[in-house]
Amino acid sequence: MDKRISLEEVKASIRDVVDFPKPGIVFKDITTALKKPEVLEYLVDELYEYYKDKGITKVVGIESRGFILGAALAYKLKAGFVLVRKKGKLPADTYQKTYALEYGEDTIEVHKDAMNEDDVVLIHDDLLATGGTALATLDLVDAFNVKKKYVSFIVELAFLNGAKLLAKNGETEIHTLLSY
Amino acid sequence: MDKRISLEEVKASIRDVVDFPKPGIVFKDITTALKKPEVLEYLVDELYEYYKDKGITKVVGIESRGFILGAALAYKLKAGFVLVRKKGKLPADTYQKTYALEYGEDTIEVHKDAMNEDDVVLIHDDLLATGGTALATLDLVDAFNVKKKYVSFIVELAFLNGAKLLAKNGETEIHTLLSY
Repeated sequence: MDKRISLEEVKASIRDVVDFPKPGIVFKDITTALKKPEVLEYLVDELYEYYKDKGITKVVGIESRGFILGAALAYKLKAGFVLVRKKGKLPADTYQKTYALEYGEDTIEVHKDAMNEDDVVLIHDDLLATGGTALATLDLVDAFNVKKKYVSFIVELAFLNGAKLLAKNGETEIHTLLSY
Repeated sequence: MDKRISLEEVKASIRDVVDFPKPGIVFKDITTALKKPEVLEYLVDELYEYYKDKGITKVVGIESRGFILGAALAYKLKAGFVLVRKKGKLPADTYQKTYALEYGEDTIEVHKDAMNEDDVVLIHDDLLATGGTALATLDLVDAFNVKKKYVSFIVELAFLNGAKLLAKNGETEIHTLLSY
């Protein structure tokens, strides 16, 4: 387990599931990667190495797969962990952001006491597709007037141009481990 | 941040939210604990110390707050991480378990290739209340005929007798950091 694996091995451990969640979509299933100790270790360590000198004080995980590496990374960076959740799941006062989906809309929330202006924030989600949820999260974090924001993903579906959408929030540095 | 805090400080960092999710319930909100680096570190380290010599090969996190410490713990234990999710969210073939809630029922799932008979499994969720979801997860894990199962929680609401319900699955060792 201490032997480092290659990025190609990590990529091979992610499963393509055809027609999920609907016909025509090829879903990148990271559960087959996360269940392997050496892949989980690789993913956390790679993100840790990238962010360890950036002074991150809070990692914001986007519900729910963003909680997985987000929390492991917060632990390793000796940062706090903050939850961004779907509407109605956080119990105390929240900021909310509603954003458009392909059909309809969605609302995400964060507690009003989750961050402050001294924080350097790393937002994490597993997958960058169209970028709608991540952009909404960047907008939510703006309410706290933090020192600096970073965004990380495990996988980017580059053909969906999510990074371009995220640029709408301003100049935020995005880092992705695997691109398709 | 390297200075260890006390269990009392951890307990004090958990917020009581009255009447959430409905009137009469006092919700134990761990977000105020997780956002503090020293508390997050304490929680992961305490669970790690408890399980480090038990040969855990997979940590099973229950969606979605169980993903938080579950994944950090899997990383630290050099184990794999497995997701137990609400119905319809896992993309490949799953085992399912339907269980009763106070009103109605719920179904959780796990991928059929998530574990095997060589695994020593640690199931993790943030909170043990009535124990319904954790019992359903224990039953799900039984499909894999694993070597041994453990169950851990951050918080137990002891007056709800969840541990007694979990005993229905058989003799599984339960470990909880904080009891109310």
